[in-house]
Amino acid sequence: MKSISDAILAGDRLSLARLITGIENQRQDALNCLDQLFPFTGKAHLIGVTGSPGSGKSSLVNRIAQLYRHPGEGHAARRVAVVAVDPTSPFTGGALLGDRVRMRDLSGDAGVFIRSMATRGALGGLASTTSQVVQALDAAGFETIIIETVGVGQSEIDIARLAHTVVVVEVPGMGDHIQAGKAGILEIADILVVNKADQDGADHSVRVLNQMLDLEFSDEMVGDHGHYPAKIKHDAAAPDQVLRFWRPPVLKTIATQGEGVAALIEGFMDHQHFLELSGELKVREDRRIKNEFDHLLRDGLMARWRKEIADEWYQESLDDVMKRIYSPREAVQKLVRMGSFLLLT
Amino acid sequence: MKSISDAILAGDRLSLARLITGIENQRQDALNCLDQLFPFTGKAHLIGVTGSPGSGKSSLVNRIAQLYRHPGEGHAARRVAVVAVDPTSPFTGGALLGDRVRMRDLSGDAGVFIRSMATRGALGGLASTTSQVVQALDAAGFETIIIETVGVGQSEIDIARLAHTVVVVEVPGMGDHIQAGKAGILEIADILVVNKADQDGADHSVRVLNQMLDLEFSDEMVGDHGHYPAKIKHDAAAPDQVLRFWRPPVLKTIATQGEGVAALIEGFMDHQHFLELSGELKVREDRRIKNEFDHLLRDGLMARWRKEIADEWYQESLDDVMKRIYSPREAVQKLVRMGSFLLLT
Repeated sequence: MKSISDAILAGDRLSLARLITGIENQRQDALNCLDQLFPFTGKAHLIGVTGSPGSGKSSLVNRIAQLYRHPGEGHAARRVAVVAVDPTSPFTGGALLGDRVRMRDLSGDAGVFIRSMATRGALGGLASTTSQVVQALDAAGFETIIIETVGVGQSEIDIARLAHTVVVVEVPGMGDHIQAGKAGILEIADILVVNKADQDGADHSVRVLNQMLDLEFSDEMVGDHGHYPAKIKHDAAAPDQVLRFWRPPVLKTIATQGEGVAALIEGFMDHQHFLELSGELKVREDRRIKNEFDHLLRDGLMARWRKEIADEWYQESLDDVMKRIYSPREAVQKLVRMGSFLLLT
Repeated sequence: MKSISDAILAGDRLSLARLITGIENQRQDALNCLDQLFPFTGKAHLIGVTGSPGSGKSSLVNRIAQLYRHPGEGHAARRVAVVAVDPTSPFTGGALLGDRVRMRDLSGDAGVFIRSMATRGALGGLASTTSQVVQALDAAGFETIIIETVGVGQSEIDIARLAHTVVVVEVPGMGDHIQAGKAGILEIADILVVNKADQDGADHSVRVLNQMLDLEFSDEMVGDHGHYPAKIKHDAAAPDQVLRFWRPPVLKTIATQGEGVAALIEGFMDHQHFLELSGELKVREDRRIKNEFDHLLRDGLMARWRKEIADEWYQESLDDVMKRIYSPREAVQKLVRMGSFLLLT
């Protein structure tokens, strides 16, 4: 076991790929290995990229990876990993095909690692498994890790929240789509991208997005706290405290031609810089770890409890609910009390 | 307390509205009242309607409600409730405005109840809270309950799974959108609707959807098991067992003009009939209740455990993870064992 984590820390790709497969299958040996790697995590810049199907975000992510590898004179190349997650198609093998297409552009470069997540089965734990895969890549020394997800639903939001910097990719001509249902997206976006900017309506889309942002950001918030007009974000736990100043910039890209990608990467770096200066980096890191911790704790308590309580008691309670003798809440209260009683005697 | 549940069972709207507000805020008195109402649930036909923003599903739901109320000669009117949930905009008040617009069409009719769910805050528990609101409406005697949700992400899928019959609303010209990321949607849809069928490309969209369905359904599955060509769906727990025969029909509607809505309602009734004949109704009911039960059980165990374990122990463990002394998994294992030890001594 020790030797596998050593190999991964030393940069061995095959061991890393095997570990990730093990994590996907939640194999015990893989999780043990991840425990050994955990002290070496926390160094990578985690970038979440989300957008509707057809927004061209996969091409964009490919271009970002290429530019990180070949940044031009005066800049050091960064090691970059891509984790592509598609929660909307749990049953297709499409992700794997996508890998092969991607590989063509970036193959043979040891500084790049690309992995699609097979999401069939344990959908509830997708964010948790993705988090573990990201930890493995972080320990393996990838300096930038891009988490790419499809769609705008809650699971995508959960996955985007694993990241330090969240990029939302749009396309020209979003129309009522945006007005009707995208408020939640503005809440999570650190950078907004209008891709396919050579299509009609790109400038209009940029304008619409900026107008939506204007509604959130008053003039007083525009300051010198960041490279972009300031954003004030309140914390529910401390509503009067100003936690961060960052107004998401709206950038145009044409991923197929690589246009605008350099400016986007500059945006990543600006945001990373801002996160460090403002203390927001620690806030996000702590929140991320607490989420994972609480999630595992719930699972752990349930598992311990199921081991201690006779299965027929659980089943009888459930049957009582199905027969509508007790409500779910009443039955659960009884069961939890029963567990306490048993343990205390 | 007793009198409130009695009032709701007797059809008092104000008590029902207050109960639902209490459920949204997870107030203790409301949850107690819901316990009393639970034995009276399980009678309503639960219909989930989901689709992208801009698909016109709200207009469609309005039309469905109207037709249920005024079904034409020879048909009895049904009492209908609508629960509108928008998981993508947790922070806007848009839902309430929507309610007012809806109310205009259906106001003054005691057989209709419309409610938008405010989703700010407890997003994780949205499906659970929605389930409780549906129970209240079920006990109050609404024969059809429509659960309307935005988008195609996981939380929408979770909410759609509360329903007996799931309707996915599309619009013409879905293009690569559909091919790229909608496989998951076909998995949950019992009925597919192409709304705005007066727009260009409606027939093309119907054809594309049917072609996607063709890939899933071979000729042998077409039988006389239902009103529509047969669908075989496998259960993960019993992979060799044929559980149901239902191929989702693809229907065209023009919600703004009410066109196709009668056929859609017929589809609901066919599907309800099929659910009863095939035994699938019980399968879905049991799964729904088990999900809610397990969810509450996890919460209950976590709450009991937090009460028993000193807060500083929890915080110390979390700090150890943040300092990367232990991995989340290691820290949780230690904590859970500590809890067991305390309870046993």
